[in-house]
Amino acid sequence: MAARPGGHNLAVMNGPKEKVLTLDTMNACVKRVEYAVRGPIVLRALELEQELRQGVKKPFTEVIRANIGDAHAMGQKPITFLRQVLALCVHPDLLNSPDFPEDAKRRAESILQACGGHSLGAYSNSSGIQPIREHVAQYIQRRDGGIPADPNNIFLSTGASDAIVTVLKLLVAGEGRCRTGVLIPIPQYPLYSAALAELNAVQVDYYLDEDRAWALDVAELRRALCQARGHCRPRALCIINPGNPTGQVQTRECIEAVIRFAFEEQLFLMADEVYQDNVYAEGSQFHSFKKVLMEMGPPYSTQQELASFHSISKGYVEVVNMDPAVQQQMQKMMSVRLCPPLPGQAVLDMVVSPPEPSDPSFTQFQAEKQAVLADLAAKAKLTEKVFNAVPGIRCNPVQGAMYSFPRIELPPRAIQRAKELGLAPDMFFCLRLLEETGICVVPGSGFGQREGTYHFRMTILPAAEKLRPLLEKLSQFHAKFTREYS
Amino acid sequence: MAARPGGHNLAVMNGPKEKVLTLDTMNACVKRVEYAVRGPIVLRALELEQELRQGVKKPFTEVIRANIGDAHAMGQKPITFLRQVLALCVHPDLLNSPDFPEDAKRRAESILQACGGHSLGAYSNSSGIQPIREHVAQYIQRRDGGIPADPNNIFLSTGASDAIVTVLKLLVAGEGRCRTGVLIPIPQYPLYSAALAELNAVQVDYYLDEDRAWALDVAELRRALCQARGHCRPRALCIINPGNPTGQVQTRECIEAVIRFAFEEQLFLMADEVYQDNVYAEGSQFHSFKKVLMEMGPPYSTQQELASFHSISKGYVEVVNMDPAVQQQMQKMMSVRLCPPLPGQAVLDMVVSPPEPSDPSFTQFQAEKQAVLADLAAKAKLTEKVFNAVPGIRCNPVQGAMYSFPRIELPPRAIQRAKELGLAPDMFFCLRLLEETGICVVPGSGFGQREGTYHFRMTILPAAEKLRPLLEKLSQFHAKFTREYS
Ligand SMILES: Cc1ncc(COP(=O)(O)O)c(C=O)c1O
Ligand SMILES: Cc1ncc(COP(=O)(O)O)c(C=O)c1O
Repeated sequence: MAARPGGHNLAVMNGPKEKVLTLDTMNACVKRVEYAVRGPIVLRALELEQELRQGVKKPFTEVIRANIGDAHAMGQKPITFLRQVLALCVHPDLLNSPDFPEDAKRRAESILQACGGHSLGAYSNSSGIQPIREHVAQYIQRRDGGIPADPNNIFLSTGASDAIVTVLKLLVAGEGRCRTGVLIPIPQYPLYSAALAELNAVQVDYYLDEDRAWALDVAELRRALCQARGHCRPRALCIINPGNPTGQVQTRECIEAVIRFAFEEQLFLMADEVYQDNVYAEGSQFHSFKKVLMEMGPPYSTQQELASFHSISKGYVEVVNMDPAVQQQMQKMMSVRLCPPLPGQAVLDMVVSPPEPSDPSFTQFQAEKQAVLADLAAKAKLTEKVFNAVPGIRCNPVQGAMYSFPRIELPPRAIQRAKELGLAPDMFFCLRLLEETGICVVPGSGFGQREGTYHFRMTILPAAEKLRPLLEKLSQFHAKFTREYS
Repeated sequence: MAARPGGHNLAVMNGPKEKVLTLDTMNACVKRVEYAVRGPIVLRALELEQELRQGVKKPFTEVIRANIGDAHAMGQKPITFLRQVLALCVHPDLLNSPDFPEDAKRRAESILQACGGHSLGAYSNSSGIQPIREHVAQYIQRRDGGIPADPNNIFLSTGASDAIVTVLKLLVAGEGRCRTGVLIPIPQYPLYSAALAELNAVQVDYYLDEDRAWALDVAELRRALCQARGHCRPRALCIINPGNPTGQVQTRECIEAVIRFAFEEQLFLMADEVYQDNVYAEGSQFHSFKKVLMEMGPPYSTQQELASFHSISKGYVEVVNMDPAVQQQMQKMMSVRLCPPLPGQAVLDMVVSPPEPSDPSFTQFQAEKQAVLADLAAKAKLTEKVFNAVPGIRCNPVQGAMYSFPRIELPPRAIQRAKELGLAPDMFFCLRLLEETGICVVPGSGFGQREGTYHFRMTILPAAEKLRPLLEKLSQFHAKFTREYS
C-alpha cells in the first residue's frame, strides 16, 4: 500500500464536507420520475398501520390497501398445482412423498431436468430456460388459433416491468428535437411515464375516450403524433390492453386500425397484454396484437415491428419482426443481469402449460382457476353497479384487468382547498378518504387524466364480502366530502 | 373508431419499409455495452452442446462451463434447511407434514406472517419484507462486531446487480467534461463496465497489482483519478472485495487507506462484497468497508458516503451516510419495479439468520455449509498449485471468491494470428481451448487487463474429482498451443 502523501488530508480538517450525492447533484432524470401507485398515499397508509398497531385511536380498525392489484394479499387463493410443483422444484426430496399428484411430480422433474445441476439454485440462460420458452411459444400458438410463435423470439424476464424497460431502452436515442418520443395512453400504468422520464425520452400522451368506455381512437393517436413531431421524433406506440387503470378491452377493429396507423407512421408497437387472461364483460374478448397483425397479412405481418408483453408475474416478451441485429443487442442486455429468477420461470411454465384433461390435477386446477375468474367477474360488475348508483361518481364497465377507475365530481371549494395545500384535487380527496375510512386508493392524477376531470383507481380484488361494504363506505364518504365542501 | 383518412396508406404500396429499430437507430449506449461472461464464447459453447447432442463427433464428450460461478450447475449441494423452509413457504400445506424439522416450520411461518395474505405470491414493500430487512441488519451487526446497522438503510434487491445499477444510476449526471466518472478496478466484474456504458458515464480504470497478488494500491487510484479529472468529473469509487475475477482479499490497512482517499477526494464509495463468505486463504480475513469506516471514527464514520452490496444471490445493499433526500429517490426508483422476487427474499432471510445452536437444524446446516466452504478452499489451493507447476502459466493465490485468473504467456505467432482474425489474443486462445477440449473459460480481455498481458477466468467450482483433470487438460492444451505457434 503506497503511503499517503502529506498535505492530502486538508479535507479532514475542514469540518463537515458536502455530500457527493445530493438532490442537486444526482441524476436529474431519476429525480423527475414519479410513481403514484406506491407514492405518498401509500407511505401515509404505512404510517397509519403503524399507528393502529401502537393503539392510536382512528375512525377505522384496519387500512384497506385497494391501491394495488396484489391478489394474494387480498386473500385470493393460490392455485394448488402451482404451489405443489414449485415446492417439488425447490425441495426435490419431496419427489418421494406420497402427498403429491403424479403429474405435479412429472412436471417438477421436467423443469429440474432443464436446470443446471437439476437445481432451481442454478443460473439459467439469460433469455430463460429453453423448454419453458418453448412452452410459452406453444401457449401463444394455442392462444392465437394456431399462428406459430418462435421460441427464439421469446425472452423470459423479471416481470413485465423488466421486459418493457428493456425494449424502451433499445428505442431511446437522439438529442433535442430528435429525442425519441413514445406514445402512451392517458390514463396509463405509471411504469411507462417513470421509465420514459428515467431514460430521458419524450412522453407523448394520447387520451383514451372516457365517454366511450375508454376506447382508443385513431384520430386521437394522429393528433398526438402530429403535435409531437414538432418537438421530438416519435418512434414507438404503447398500448395497454386490457387497460390498467381503465379496464377496457379493445375490439378487433380497433386493434386493426392501430396496427395500420403504426405501420403507416413507422412506429414500433409495444402491446402490454399482461391482463390477457382477465376479461369479464359479456361481449368483450381478448385479441392479441400478434394474432391480428398476422391475420392482416403482408405487408403488416411481415414488416410491422411488435413486442408483446405478458406477466404472471414473472413475465415474458415476444418480439415480432425485430431487426435480428437489434434482437442480439436485446439478448446481450438481458445477459448483463444474468437471468430472471428461476422460481418465477417455473411458475410461468405451469401457467402457460397447465394440466391437460388426462392429468390427475386437471379438474382441481380448472375449478380453482375458474373460481378465481368468476369471482373477479362478479366483483367487476358489483363495482360498476354500486358506483354508478351514487350521484357524482361515474364508472365505466370493468371489462377486464383488475381495477375500476371511476370519475368523481369534486366541489369547487374542495378544489380550491387542495390548491391551497399544494395537492392535486383528487390526491386531496384520496388522502382525506384514507384518514377518515382507512381505504387506500390511488388518485387519477397518478395515471394522468383529462384536465379538469378527477378519478381514483381501486382494485376489484378484495373478497366479495368485503368489497360491497368497501364500495358503500367509499360512496358515503364521497357524499359527505361533497357536502362538506359545498 | 375514427375512419382512416384517405391517402394515408401510401406506405403500404411503397414496398418493404425500413425497420424503426435498427443497429443504426438504436440506443448507442446500449450498443456499446460489452458482457464477456456470457459473450461469444458462451454462445459457441451452446452451439457445441447442441452439436454433441446431435451426434457430431468432437475431440471431447461434454462442454464444461467453467466460465461462470454457477455453483449448483457445477454440482454443489443445496443446503437442506434453505430448501425445506422455501418449500414450506411456497406450499404451506406442508406445514402439517411430519417430514420437516420444527425450526424450519417456525421459520416458514414467521416469513409467511410477514407476507401479504400470508402468501409468497403477494408483493412486498419495494425495499423488501420488513422483518427480513431487520434480520439483515442484525446479520451485519454480528458480522461487524456489534457496530449497529439500521434496517431503514437496507434495501433488498433483485440480485446485487440490480442494487449496483440502481446506485450507479443515481450518480450519473452532467455532460461533456462534467460527465460523471466512476473508478473501477481492472480486472473488473463486467457488470460495471456494462452499466457505465449503458448509463453513458465515464469508466475510469485503476489497475490492480498482479505482482502483489492483485493488491489495490492507493497511488494507482490517485494516478487514475488525476488523469480522469482532465476529461470528466469522478464521483464514485467501486471496490470489489473479495475480488472477481481476481480472487484477492484486501487487508484492513488497504481498506483504511482507500477510505481516506475517497474521503479526501470526495468520492462516493461502492463496496461490492458479494463474496464476503468466500474467504479461504490462511492469513486472509474479510473486513467490511462499513466496519472499517465506523472504526475510523469521525469525520469518516459520520460523513463518508458508502453503499455496500451483498448477494446470495438475491441481494441487498446497505447505504451509509447517504443524503436522506437521495435515499428517498432511491426508494422511489425501487418502487417502480414493485419489489424483489419473494422466494429470493425468503432465502436471504435464512442466509442472514441461520439456525441457532439450540435449533434442530443447526448441526446439519453448519455441517453442510462448512463442507461447501472447506471443499472450495481445497479447490482454490489445488487450482493455484496445478497452474503454477506449468511453464507459461502463473496464478496468484485464490484468497477468496470463486475464480482463478491465471496469467498466460502466448507466443508472438499466436498473437499475430489472433490479430489477423480480429480477435483479442486471449479470446483466440479460449476459443481454441473450447473447440479442442470442450472447456469454456472467459478471456481476460473481457474483464480488462494490463496491455500486453493475457489471462483467462475459470471458476474453481467443479467437483474436486473433475477439477484436477480439468486443470491438467487445460495446462496440456496451453503447452500444445504454445508449441503450435512457436
Ligand atoms: C399494465 C401493466 N403492465 C405491466 C405491469 C408489470 O408487471 P410485472 O409485475 O410482471 O412487472 C403491470 C403490473 O401491475 C401492469 O398493470
Ligand atoms: C463481484 C460481483 N458483483 C456482483 C455480482 C452480481 O450478483 P447477483 O447475481 O446477485 O446479481 C456478481 C455475480 O457474479 C459478482 O461476481
